[in-house]
Amino acid sequence: MKGKIIVAGLGPGKKSLMTQEVFEVIEKATDIIGYSTYINRIKPRANLNLHSSDNREEPKRALDAINLALNGKNVVIISSGDPGVFAMASVMFETLDNGPDIWKQIEIVILPGVTAMLAAAARVGAPLGHDFCAINLSNNLKPWELIEKRIRLSIECDFVICIYNPRSKSRPNDFAKTLTILRETCDENRYILFAKSVYSDNEKIEIIKLKDAIEDMADMKTLVIIGSSLSKIIKRKKGDFFYTPRSVE
Amino acid sequence: MKGKIIVAGLGPGKKSLMTQEVFEVIEKATDIIGYSTYINRIKPRANLNLHSSDNREEPKRALDAINLALNGKNVVIISSGDPGVFAMASVMFETLDNGPDIWKQIEIVILPGVTAMLAAAARVGAPLGHDFCAINLSNNLKPWELIEKRIRLSIECDFVICIYNPRSKSRPNDFAKTLTILRETCDENRYILFAKSVYSDNEKIEIIKLKDAIEDMADMKTLVIIGSSLSKIIKRKKGDFFYTPRSVE
Repeated sequence: MKGKIIVAGLGPGKKSLMTQEVFEVIEKATDIIGYSTYINRIKPRANLNLHSSDNREEPKRALDAINLALNGKNVVIISSGDPGVFAMASVMFETLDNGPDIWKQIEIVILPGVTAMLAAAARVGAPLGHDFCAINLSNNLKPWELIEKRIRLSIECDFVICIYNPRSKSRPNDFAKTLTILRETCDENRYILFAKSVYSDNEKIEIIKLKDAIEDMADMKTLVIIGSSLSKIIKRKKGDFFYTPRSVE
Repeated sequence: MKGKIIVAGLGPGKKSLMTQEVFEVIEKATDIIGYSTYINRIKPRANLNLHSSDNREEPKRALDAINLALNGKNVVIISSGDPGVFAMASVMFETLDNGPDIWKQIEIVILPGVTAMLAAAARVGAPLGHDFCAINLSNNLKPWELIEKRIRLSIECDFVICIYNPRSKSRPNDFAKTLTILRETCDENRYILFAKSVYSDNEKIEIIKLKDAIEDMADMKTLVIIGSSLSKIIKRKKGDFFYTPRSVE
C-alpha cells in the first residue's frame, strides 16, 4: 500500500509552539484535511490541496483521508493541540476499526503536540505539578451521570482536574452543574483557572476562587483547570503564579 | 529587575519534537541549567554557560537559576517532556514561594512541551482519546496509601491511567503492587502499554494484556498507560494500533 495518513497536532494558537516535525510534514504534504479554522492557518501553495470541513464533520474527515491514502496520496489531517487528546486521532482509529480489513493496513502516523491543558498551565505557572486528570465535559458521546461520577471521584482523589469543552451553545448548563458539584464538595477558596484561546491574540486568563466563579467564565474555547486542595497562588505585582506543590505531607 | 528565568520543555528524546519556541530560546540563552542527560543534548558554543547537575538536585537547579537571574542573566532551565508535568516548573515555584519577597518579582516564563504520555500515546494510536488521569507513582513525596487510593478510584472512574515513574532501584515494588490492584479490580484482558525511551534509539514498546503483564516490563524510563475497559486493539500485519473510543454507550 503506497498512501499514508499523518495526524498532526498544531499545538495551541501560536505557530512557534508547533513541533519541528509538524512544520516539516506540513511543508511536504500534498493534501491537508481539517476543520476550517485550522486549515486557514496553512499557507496555500502550488500542488497542495486543502480540504476544509465543518466542526461536526470529524468522521467525514477520517473517511476522506482513508480514500486519499487508498489512492496513493500522502495525507495530513491537522488538529489543534495534541491529536490524541479528545481530537482527530481517536476518530481516525474508530473509522478504521469499523471499516473493511484493507483499511487497517494503511500506514498511519500520529504526531503529538502541546495539548490545551499543558499550554494553559504554562501560562500561569505549574498547576499540573502533581497528579491530575482530564475530563471532556461534552455529553454528546457519554451520559452526564458518568461525567458527574468522574468529577466526584476525582475530587475524592484530590486530583487537579482539567476540563475540556466545558460549555457550548447546545450544552449551556453542564458547567453550571459542575460548579454546583464543586460547591458541595470543595472549600470555597479552591482556585479555578479559566484559560481562553491560550497563546492567541484573544487570550484571556483568570484565576478565580470557587466562591467567585460563575458559569459565564467558560465557553467552548476555554480550558478550565480546577486546582487540588493543595494548589496555591504566589502573589505578585505583575500576574500571580498558580502552581501545585509536588509533595503531600 | 533585569534577569529572567525560562523553564523549557525539550519534549521526548527526539529533537524534531521540540517546539520552535524552545529551539529559539536555547539558541539565545547565555546560561542553561539542567540534569546532565539533558545538558548533553545541547551543543556547546561561545558565550554559553552550561550548568549540569545530578538527577536528585532539582531544588539546587532552581536556586542556581534564581541567583543567576538576580545577577541579570537570562537563564534557561531545561526539562524533558513538558516542564509542568512532574518536572522542573513546580520545583521552581516551590522554591520561589519559600524564598524572600524579592524573588517573587523575577520574570519567569514556562515553555510547554510534548509530555511523555502524549509521546507514548502517539506511537501506538490514540489511547488518550477518552477521559484519563496521570499519576506519578513515586512515593518520595506522598504516602503510598494516597497513591493506592487514587489508582482504585481511577479504575472506578474507568479512566485511562497514565503512570509516570513506575519503578526505580529505590522503589522496586510499587509497580508490582499496582499490578496486584489491577488484577483485583479489572478484567484480565485489560490492555497495558509499556513505552520505554519513546522516540529514542533505545525505544521499546509493548502492548500487553493484564494477565501477561509483569513488573519487570517497567523501569524509570518507562511510561505506562493502562487502558480503560473500552480501550481496544486494531490487529495489523505491522504493529497493532491501541486506542480508546470517544463514545460510552
